[in-house]
Amino acid sequence: VKRSGSVADDWASSPILTTALAARGGRRVALEEAIRDAIRSGRLQPSDPLPSSRSLAADLGLARGTVAEAYAQLTAEGYLTARPGAPTRVAAGAAPAEPAIADRTPAERPAFTLEVGVPDVAAFPRAAWIAAMRRALRTAPSPLLALGDPRGSAALREALATHLRRTRGVVTDPARIVVTCGFSHGLAMLCRTLRATGLDEIAMEDPCLHQHRTIAAGASLRVRALPVDEDGASASPPAGTRVAIVTPAHQFPLGMTLAPARRNALIAWAAAHDALIVEDDYDGEYRYDHQPVGALQGLDPERVVYAGTVSKTLAPALRLGWLVLPQRLVEPALEAKDLLAGEVSTIEQLTMAELLQSGAYDRHVRRTRLRYRRRRDLLIELLAAQTPPLTPRGIAAGLHVVAELPADTDEDLLMARAADNDLALNTLTPYWHDPTGKRPSLILGYAAPPDHAFAQTLALLARVLYSPQTRLGRSVSTR
Amino acid sequence: VKRSGSVADDWASSPILTTALAARGGRRVALEEAIRDAIRSGRLQPSDPLPSSRSLAADLGLARGTVAEAYAQLTAEGYLTARPGAPTRVAAGAAPAEPAIADRTPAERPAFTLEVGVPDVAAFPRAAWIAAMRRALRTAPSPLLALGDPRGSAALREALATHLRRTRGVVTDPARIVVTCGFSHGLAMLCRTLRATGLDEIAMEDPCLHQHRTIAAGASLRVRALPVDEDGASASPPAGTRVAIVTPAHQFPLGMTLAPARRNALIAWAAAHDALIVEDDYDGEYRYDHQPVGALQGLDPERVVYAGTVSKTLAPALRLGWLVLPQRLVEPALEAKDLLAGEVSTIEQLTMAELLQSGAYDRHVRRTRLRYRRRRDLLIELLAAQTPPLTPRGIAAGLHVVAELPADTDEDLLMARAADNDLALNTLTPYWHDPTGKRPSLILGYAAPPDHAFAQTLALLARVLYSPQTRLGRSVSTR
Repeated sequence: VKRSGSVADDWASSPILTTALAARGGRRVALEEAIRDAIRSGRLQPSDPLPSSRSLAADLGLARGTVAEAYAQLTAEGYLTARPGAPTRVAAGAAPAEPAIADRTPAERPAFTLEVGVPDVAAFPRAAWIAAMRRALRTAPSPLLALGDPRGSAALREALATHLRRTRGVVTDPARIVVTCGFSHGLAMLCRTLRATGLDEIAMEDPCLHQHRTIAAGASLRVRALPVDEDGASASPPAGTRVAIVTPAHQFPLGMTLAPARRNALIAWAAAHDALIVEDDYDGEYRYDHQPVGALQGLDPERVVYAGTVSKTLAPALRLGWLVLPQRLVEPALEAKDLLAGEVSTIEQLTMAELLQSGAYDRHVRRTRLRYRRRRDLLIELLAAQTPPLTPRGIAAGLHVVAELPADTDEDLLMARAADNDLALNTLTPYWHDPTGKRPSLILGYAAPPDHAFAQTLALLARVLYSPQTRLGRSVSTR
Repeated sequence: VKRSGSVADDWASSPILTTALAARGGRRVALEEAIRDAIRSGRLQPSDPLPSSRSLAADLGLARGTVAEAYAQLTAEGYLTARPGAPTRVAAGAAPAEPAIADRTPAERPAFTLEVGVPDVAAFPRAAWIAAMRRALRTAPSPLLALGDPRGSAALREALATHLRRTRGVVTDPARIVVTCGFSHGLAMLCRTLRATGLDEIAMEDPCLHQHRTIAAGASLRVRALPVDEDGASASPPAGTRVAIVTPAHQFPLGMTLAPARRNALIAWAAAHDALIVEDDYDGEYRYDHQPVGALQGLDPERVVYAGTVSKTLAPALRLGWLVLPQRLVEPALEAKDLLAGEVSTIEQLTMAELLQSGAYDRHVRRTRLRYRRRRDLLIELLAAQTPPLTPRGIAAGLHVVAELPADTDEDLLMARAADNDLALNTLTPYWHDPTGKRPSLILGYAAPPDHAFAQTLALLARVLYSPQTRLGRSVSTR
C-alpha cells in the first residue's frame, strides 16, 4: 500500500476513523467527520500533509472519488488547503478545539418547597393546553406563521381585551395591548422607553422583587424607594421621580391591598406630575375573601400601564404576558421591543387566545383558586399554633403570605434548618432595597408544592419553625 | 319611587345600565360595570353624589345588599368615596377614560409575494408539531414548567448539540448553547455582552440585514462596514474593530459562500486580534448543488459564535433560535439575557427537542429542500429568458437569489409596477450601509409563496420585469 505522508498509518488504523466509517451510511460524510475530529483533537496539526486521495482510498477500501470529494468539502470548509501539484494539507487556521465544558451541575434542589413566585405547576392544564393548540393550529391561516403585528397576535389581543375588561376592570381595546415574554420583558421595554424620553429615575416599592430593580438599573434608571405601609405603597414618590411601579391588588411581597384613598392619591400624583404608574397585576386573579379589586388602570388608562402574565395562573415556563399601554406609549414601546428582540411564538399566542375564548382559562383559575384558598387556611392555622403565634400578613389574596419572626431570630440559622429538612424557603431580606434593621420574616409561597405533597411540606415547616435557636416555640403537626 | 340625587333619573333609565343588567348573570357585577362606565364616559363627574343604596335598589328591583356591595367594591377600587353620614360620591381621582384607539389598520398586503426572509409557511408541519408537543407534554416532569436553566431546556440543548454537530459540523456540547427568541434576540444579547466588556464598535457585512444594524446601534455599538466581494466577506475588518458578524454559508443578501481562503483568513484575523466572529447561519440547511458547507465555528469554537434559528426551516413566527458560545461568553451572555428578559416557552422548547429527536425535523428540511430547489430552477430559467438575460447571484444555497438590473433601471417605478401587479418584492437598497451609487437589484425570495401560487407568482414577476421604463425586455411565461 502506497503511503504519501507520515500521518497515513495513523489514519488507516485509527479506531476513531473506522468506528466512524462503520457507524454511518454515508462513507464520504464519515470520512469528513473523522478528518475534522483528527484536526480538532490535535492529532493532525496545521500544515500536516494528508495522504493523496488515491492512497487513502486504497487504504480504506473507498472509491478514490469519495476521498477526493471529502477533501474538496473540507477545503471548502477551511480545514484543508489544496494547491495544484502539492499535497493537500491541514489549513493554518484550523486550530484544535478547546476541551468541551461540562453542563453546569444543576444545584441539588430541596425535595419540598414553599418558594414564592411559583404556582402549582403540577396543576398545569396539559390536556386543555394541547386541545387549545390543536384547535388553534387547525384554523390559523398560514400567513400568521410568518412575522406579524409587532404588538402580538390580533386574536390574542382581542381575547385579552375582553378578558381583562370583564375580570379586572381594565379599560382597553386590542390596539393598546402589547404581548410580552412576561412581566420582566414588559418592564425592560418600559424602562428603555422611559429612558429614551430622558427620564433617569424610577420609584419601586420597598420591598419589591429584586430582579425588577436589576432590570431598571440595567436600563440606566436610578431606582428610588417607594415606602410601603399598612395601606400599601406611598402615594408620594420621591420628588423629581415621574414613574412608579406598584402592585395594587396584592403588594409584592408584603401582601396588603392598596387602600382606596391611596389609589386615588396615586392617580392624583400622576396627574399633578405628568407621571406614569405601572401596575404589576402579578396575581390579581387570586382573591379569596371577596371579589378581586379591579385594576387601578381603570381609573386613568392614560396614566397607568397595566401589566399581567400567565406565570401565576398557568406556568412561569410559558413566558407569556401583556402590557396595556396609554395610547401615546404604544409606538415607543414597540420600538423598545424591537431592540430587546424578544417575542412570543405565535402558535403559543393563538393557543392562549383559544384557551381564553373557550372558557378553559377561567375554569382553570377558578379551580386553582379553591385549591389555593384551602392551602392558605391550613398554613394560617399552622402559623397561629406556634408559640408565640405568628400572625401572617397579606392573607386576603395571592399565592403567599409573610410571617414576621421574633426580632432576634437568626435568619441564617433558620434557613440552614430548612435546608437540613429538605425544604426550600425564602426570607424577606432580598426584597428590601436596604435590608438593614428590618424585622426577620419568612415569605411563604403556599402555591408551589404539588397537592399531594402539601401536608408534608407544612409538617416540615412546623419542624423548621420549632427551633431553640429561633425561639419559635413548639412544633405543630397539621395532620 | 324615592330619589336621592340628581343623577338618579339618568341611572335607572340609562339604556347602558339596563343593557348591562340584562346581559349578565351577576347583577352586582353588572351594576358595578355600569357605574364604572358612567364614570369613565363622563356621565358621572367627580364628586357627583350617588343615590342611596336603598333608593337605587328600589329603582332597579335589586336587593339593597347587592347595591351596597357594589358601592363597597367600587369604593375599594377608588371609583367612589364613602363617608359615614354623607352620600356616596364619585371619587375625585376617577377621571374619564380617553377615547379608545382603533386597532392599527393592517397595511393592505399584496396577494402574491417574492419577499425575502420568509419560508413557505404553508408547508409548516402542523401535524408533526402537534404530535411532538403532545409527546413532550405527556412525559415532561412538572418542575420543568417552573422557571429552569437560564440557557434553555436541557433536553433541547442536548438535541441541538447532536443535530448541529451532525448536520453543520458545529463543535459544541449542551453547556455552551443558549436558547434565544431568534437571531435578533441572540444578537441583542451579544451586543450587550460586548458593550459591557468595553467594545464600542462592530463590523457588519455590507450589505446585510438592516434590522441587525439597528439592534447593534441600539446597544450603543458603532457599526462599521465589512465589504463583501465575490469571495464573500472581507477578512480584514476595519482597524480597531474586534467583532465581525458574518454569513459564511450564504452571504445575506448577496448569496455567495465564503471562500475557503477567506474562512481561514477570518479565523486568523480573530486569533491575531483576540477578536470574535459571529456566524449567522440563517439558512445553512439549504444547499442545493452539493453538501452544505460546514460551520465556520468548527474551525475555532473559542473565537466563533454560531447562531441558528428555525425561522427559515419551520416558521419565523416560532421565535426560536440558539447561540453556540465560546466558554468564556456563556455567563456574560446569560447576564445580558436576564436584562433583555426575553425567553422561549419551555413547552415550545420541549416540542422542538422532540421534533429533532424523532427525525421529523430532518424529514421536513429534506422535503422543503427539494421543493425550494425546484422553485429556484424555475426562477433562474425565467430570469435567463429576459432581454437582456438577468444573471442571478447566490443560487447555490438558501431561499433567495439576487438579480442585478440594468444600471439605469428606476427601482421606484419597478416597485410601483410590482404593487400594481399585487406582488410583494424587495430591492437590495435597504441592505447597503450606504446605497449611494449601488447597482439596482432585486432580491427574490422564492420560498415565500405557497406552492399552489408559485407558478402564478413567477408569471407576475415576468410581467413586472417586462416594462419599457425598466428596459427589461419581453415577458416570459413560465408555463
